[in-house]
Amino acid sequence: MARYKIILAYDGTGFSGYQRQANSRSVQSVVEHALREIGWAGRSVLSAGRTDAGVHACGQVIAVDMEWFHSNGQLQNAINANLPADVAVRSVTLASEEFHPRHSARARRYSYRLFCDGTRHPLRERYAWRVWPTVSLISLQVSASYLMGIHNFAAFGTPPKKGGSPIREILHAAWKEDAGDLVFEIVGNAFLYRMVRRLVSVQVEIGQGRRLPEDIINLLEPGVDSPIEGLAPAKGLTLVEVIYPSELGGNED
Amino acid sequence: MARYKIILAYDGTGFSGYQRQANSRSVQSVVEHALREIGWAGRSVLSAGRTDAGVHACGQVIAVDMEWFHSNGQLQNAINANLPADVAVRSVTLASEEFHPRHSARARRYSYRLFCDGTRHPLRERYAWRVWPTVSLISLQVSASYLMGIHNFAAFGTPPKKGGSPIREILHAAWKEDAGDLVFEIVGNAFLYRMVRRLVSVQVEIGQGRRLPEDIINLLEPGVDSPIEGLAPAKGLTLVEVIYPSELGGNED
Repeated sequence: MARYKIILAYDGTGFSGYQRQANSRSVQSVVEHALREIGWAGRSVLSAGRTDAGVHACGQVIAVDMEWFHSNGQLQNAINANLPADVAVRSVTLASEEFHPRHSARARRYSYRLFCDGTRHPLRERYAWRVWPTVSLISLQVSASYLMGIHNFAAFGTPPKKGGSPIREILHAAWKEDAGDLVFEIVGNAFLYRMVRRLVSVQVEIGQGRRLPEDIINLLEPGVDSPIEGLAPAKGLTLVEVIYPSELGGNED
Repeated sequence: MARYKIILAYDGTGFSGYQRQANSRSVQSVVEHALREIGWAGRSVLSAGRTDAGVHACGQVIAVDMEWFHSNGQLQNAINANLPADVAVRSVTLASEEFHPRHSARARRYSYRLFCDGTRHPLRERYAWRVWPTVSLISLQVSASYLMGIHNFAAFGTPPKKGGSPIREILHAAWKEDAGDLVFEIVGNAFLYRMVRRLVSVQVEIGQGRRLPEDIINLLEPGVDSPIEGLAPAKGLTLVEVIYPSELGGNED
């Protein structure tokens, strides 16, 4: 029996989210089904975290314990042959038996894409949130800069466990232009529930001049005790990467 | 009664193609339905050309004769309110009554996207053809350069009318890198049936070292009388723009 670290990519459009649920099409259930087809007999795969309905991933990480007598590449191909078109294994590596996709993770990287346009565009909205009026990149960049460091993010999400800490460390937060879109990149040690989508919602309000960039600073003050209303749609969000320490077969330098 | 020039964008994945056909979901039928909802009483809209099943567009052009007592922007919004998510009107302008989307066109611009990777990637394959082994950009650029000018393209497609001329003029043909993909851009006065997809198929064979770039020159010789076998999949192809002379409300400089 060996533990494999598997990186998944999926188009979240057709899924109820990552986590297995009765009577809905989740990424987890589709992947577990594919694994059973090739002899996996476990009860549940471990994952780096749940993604919500409609959220995409190119770097979701799962761990699977199984006996496999061929190469990692052959394991990847065998799983992919049993997966539908909207989910795929991007890599398979052998991991140590202590490796846990969630507990071992040092940081997560997400991206969020904005398409700024007054009119619908079917080819540009599957993986982006269309916003209008247009958004000032400068204002976005100023507001993103306030996010870096260790802060109380209670205004932007709830901890996974009731009464858990809303303190998180943001290692990188920045906006860039890409193919005419505006893309938010954020790396944090961990994230509260729906935190990235709330951060994007507030920053879009700032970028459209409906709030001041300094509002971010106020929202990060202690004393805020419930999350704000605004929530950017799931379809703009992608889990890009989960970062592990190198001794756990990770991807850190 | 006035004639409107309407630019359409659509995700071709869920359509049987542009042209109306019995018992299938075509772009034309969906758009005509939306127009009827807002009072259009015509029989058929005119278009710049048919796109095949699965082919995308961000610059398909149609002409519609109708009475409309509000602004062009309001016409655009009214049509969009009646269209499904995978097709949208990107612009509405008043055209002269001689304007015909196909007959008036001076040139068409298409793009074709390649994703070079050995493994499926659900977020990168909706609008691209995944090819492997990887493709040499230099070989693609050399082969594309042979396409420019006036040639007999009988090896790459059939004329719309039986016995019609297979001679076409290519004004621009080049490959570039974009977001890790390889993108072919081609502008021609007109195109034979499935010509762009056959040109891409041959160039991919060249780029993978399975043919020589000079094969393109041989295939453009007179004497070739039927199209080659290879056909790149529809999903990588997008009709980007149809170019008109400025006196017909066109987009030429």
